[in-house]
Amino acid sequence: MEVTLRHIAELIGGTIVGNDQILIKGINSLHVAEEGEISFLADPRLKDQIKATKASAVIVKELTSLYQRPQLIVPDPHLAYARVATIFAPPVPRFPGISEKAVIEEGTHIGEEVSIYPFVYVGRESVIGNKVILFPGVYVGDKVTVGDESVICPNVTIMPECIIGKKVIIHAGTVIGSDGFGYARDGDISVKIPQTGIVQIEDEVEIGANNTIDRAALGKTLIQKGVKTDNLVQIGHNVVVGENTIIVAQVGIAGSTNIGKGVVIGPQVGVTDHIEIGDRVMVAGKSGVAKSIPSGEVVSGIPTMPHRLWLKTRGHIRRLPEYSERLKGLESRVKELEEVLKKE
Amino acid sequence: MEVTLRHIAELIGGTIVGNDQILIKGINSLHVAEEGEISFLADPRLKDQIKATKASAVIVKELTSLYQRPQLIVPDPHLAYARVATIFAPPVPRFPGISEKAVIEEGTHIGEEVSIYPFVYVGRESVIGNKVILFPGVYVGDKVTVGDESVICPNVTIMPECIIGKKVIIHAGTVIGSDGFGYARDGDISVKIPQTGIVQIEDEVEIGANNTIDRAALGKTLIQKGVKTDNLVQIGHNVVVGENTIIVAQVGIAGSTNIGKGVVIGPQVGVTDHIEIGDRVMVAGKSGVAKSIPSGEVVSGIPTMPHRLWLKTRGHIRRLPEYSERLKGLESRVKELEEVLKKE
Amino acid sequence: MEVTLRHIAELIGGTIVGNDQILIKGINSLHVAEEGEISFLADPRLKDQIKATKASAVIVKELTSLYQRPQLIVPDPHLAYARVATIFAPPVPRFPGISEKAVIEEGTHIGEEVSIYPFVYVGRESVIGNKVILFPGVYVGDKVTVGDESVICPNVTIMPECIIGKKVIIHAGTVIGSDGFGYARDGDISVKIPQTGIVQIEDEVEIGANNTIDRAALGKTLIQKGVKTDNLVQIGHNVVVGENTIIVAQVGIAGSTNIGKGVVIGPQVGVTDHIEIGDRVMVAGKSGVAKSIPSGEVVSGIPTMPHRLWLKTRGHIRRLPEYSERLKGLESRVKELEEVLKKE
Repeated sequence: MEVTLRHIAELIGGTIVGNDQILIKGINSLHVAEEGEISFLADPRLKDQIKATKASAVIVKELTSLYQRPQLIVPDPHLAYARVATIFAPPVPRFPGISEKAVIEEGTHIGEEVSIYPFVYVGRESVIGNKVILFPGVYVGDKVTVGDESVICPNVTIMPECIIGKKVIIHAGTVIGSDGFGYARDGDISVKIPQTGIVQIEDEVEIGANNTIDRAALGKTLIQKGVKTDNLVQIGHNVVVGENTIIVAQVGIAGSTNIGKGVVIGPQVGVTDHIEIGDRVMVAGKSGVAKSIPSGEVVSGIPTMPHRLWLKTRGHIRRLPEYSERLKGLESRVKELEEVLKKE
Repeated sequence: MEVTLRHIAELIGGTIVGNDQILIKGINSLHVAEEGEISFLADPRLKDQIKATKASAVIVKELTSLYQRPQLIVPDPHLAYARVATIFAPPVPRFPGISEKAVIEEGTHIGEEVSIYPFVYVGRESVIGNKVILFPGVYVGDKVTVGDESVICPNVTIMPECIIGKKVIIHAGTVIGSDGFGYARDGDISVKIPQTGIVQIEDEVEIGANNTIDRAALGKTLIQKGVKTDNLVQIGHNVVVGENTIIVAQVGIAGSTNIGKGVVIGPQVGVTDHIEIGDRVMVAGKSGVAKSIPSGEVVSGIPTMPHRLWLKTRGHIRRLPEYSERLKGLESRVKELEEVLKKE
Repeated sequence: MEVTLRHIAELIGGTIVGNDQILIKGINSLHVAEEGEISFLADPRLKDQIKATKASAVIVKELTSLYQRPQLIVPDPHLAYARVATIFAPPVPRFPGISEKAVIEEGTHIGEEVSIYPFVYVGRESVIGNKVILFPGVYVGDKVTVGDESVICPNVTIMPECIIGKKVIIHAGTVIGSDGFGYARDGDISVKIPQTGIVQIEDEVEIGANNTIDRAALGKTLIQKGVKTDNLVQIGHNVVVGENTIIVAQVGIAGSTNIGKGVVIGPQVGVTDHIEIGDRVMVAGKSGVAKSIPSGEVVSGIPTMPHRLWLKTRGHIRRLPEYSERLKGLESRVKELEEVLKKE
């Protein structure tokens, strides 16, 4: 597919300086873009690459004299890259219709223009929306709803009664609606507490690969609109994740915790159960969140502290052997002083 | 389903104060329970909710004047909740018999009343017990045994020769019996050590979603009776996990380590290889266990220390910048004192 | 299968002391080996076990008087164990040919002597090499290449266009080529950046169970020859992992980071994005790598420091409460001294 630079500008906005009729066939990084591709300067540190790029046009924040071919000037080149890349991205592959090697149980409602690959299982009374894609190995339990235009990647498991919104993407191997980890102790024995709630995932959520999102004990585990999770994320029963929150890889969120809106949780973070994380909180990677955090805070560490404090603190940890020596030295010097004074 | 309060008391024990003939149709939390449901006060901090609940009866530890309808008095309301919820829990869905879209290889023994869904593969010479449920996408390798009444959720992989006990639940996406991570170095090259052992999972174990439990190099990796693991747990080759131990999400246990009975390992803990964790040890979340721990200890931290010490210690970490300043201040004051005394 | 001790020595090298014609039927640890099996002393701490072993022969580094039957003397008994175990390891099970219950789309090229189990899906224009094994539940997207003699375990997902080399093993549940975690922010909204690159896995790589290796945003995520990853490992988009590097369980490597050759990354380590880890670096378990590390270094901690420094440092952390007391004590003693001197 080739489009004019003018066409790109019409789709994503921005001002063209130079020939707006050149044809563009793709987008690539500055150092690998070829003739016929457009590139972009999202990170000012890469400015030098703009001189040497072979790209036929570049997307920039400000007109630059380092590059002589057409430039598309936009307020946010990184966002523009996302939008232009979407123009050129290959479409998601689609099986034409419903494979006769899929199993669709009775009482289901299957929408129009769906793509259901071989080896998909859809349980009784489930509802599959229009244009949904179910890749091979997907299991959809009884009474599940999958909203319009959602894409469920290979080998995903959606347990019974869960609700998936519209335009949701669930990457391969993820499990939605497995039992929450709930037991009551009877002496040494763990007595299972039936997990009779559900998972609800709202519209435009994207869930990474090999995630596990547990169904509620009672009620629901809720992933609100626009949330994005990376790979290998664990979300416990009855957790609520607020709108547009971002959860990076290998994070674990324990049961009944409420995560606010627009929160960013870095990789390998653990968040304890039954706490409240306010809106727009940021948690640095590898932190351990042991108590509630008010809106807007930025935290780090195990347990977490304000990120600014952590930045000051972490350098001191490695100096502990030195501090210990200095403390010991001071003690003997003070003892000596005390003895001198006692004698006088 | 509706049962009388009397019927519930007969099943789980306890004393009824009030009308024991009222009909109960379900169980729910205090603040969401509706007319016709029973609720429970497991956490005394929620006592205020008991005043406002719409539940038709409550399970309590002690008779309370905050609530005027029937009360069921039991020693442990949380355990009672687990038991009552089991009465009302919907049954696990069952495929009627063996799907003709499953593949059962030759030489297998399949028990009675099994439920084998489409797209299940059962290898040669495997034994599937009575009332076992194998959900879609389950792979059972050659010479595997699955005991009576076990439930294997969708897309679980059980590699050849592994032994699964009775009444075991394995949640979706989990891998049992993948090769242990064993190599010998030949210069720069890692030479694979064949992993010829197995995994044995004893009765009444529950394994979470997307776990990985590796087969032994030689001998077996052993998960003993009543163990419960949460999601995304990694158990290395030749590990032994003792009876009734609880392993929370995203824990990793390295090869050949022995975990005792009744141990509780918090989320995101790492346990190193070739060590012994005694019975009833508790390890707080995110800890790094680098050496053996005697029975009954409670530990935290990286590396672990007694939990009481960690509670005292962790607050000091954030004060390191302050301590560093105070140390520096002391040094200059002592130096001054020394100079004053030298002069005298 | 039984082979003579001579035959073993011919295959793996080494010098036999004793009868080289004895027949060996397997290999096992010293304390469990039986008559007819060979064992090995790889860890000198187990020397005492050699006295009591029932093994018919042992592999040792030096001739020992603790054992009276034939000994095979080799420079590296652990490596010899790997090699001998390979002789006796059962062959990987193979489905004879291509199951008629697999789906192979049009335009694929399938090599000779492949083993394609039921419920395998192979997309259009994919190339499956000679002697490849695809276990049940494997999804191979369009335009994927799988090299000769590779083994893809059950329920593995390989997304479109990815390239898998020769003699690669991918364990169950792993996802290759899911979308990288890339968004541009448009106000509160995360706009998805299409992930149009691929994953390339070179020859003789082994990937553990339930890994997630993301496709590049542009270009490729590259796992070079001989790399071995343990279970539940996360590798972000555009990462490069150098030859023969070893990545232990539950490690996460963030996007665009370059890992050198012969690196060893311990369990539960996190490595941040866009950094360089030099050749032969070793990172201890649970570390957080926040900046680039030069070749050959050994590091630990969050954030990482030289491992030797960490060994000195970690013991001090638990002494912080004591240090705090000592600091306070010194301050009051110094104050007293100052007052005494002031008076004089």
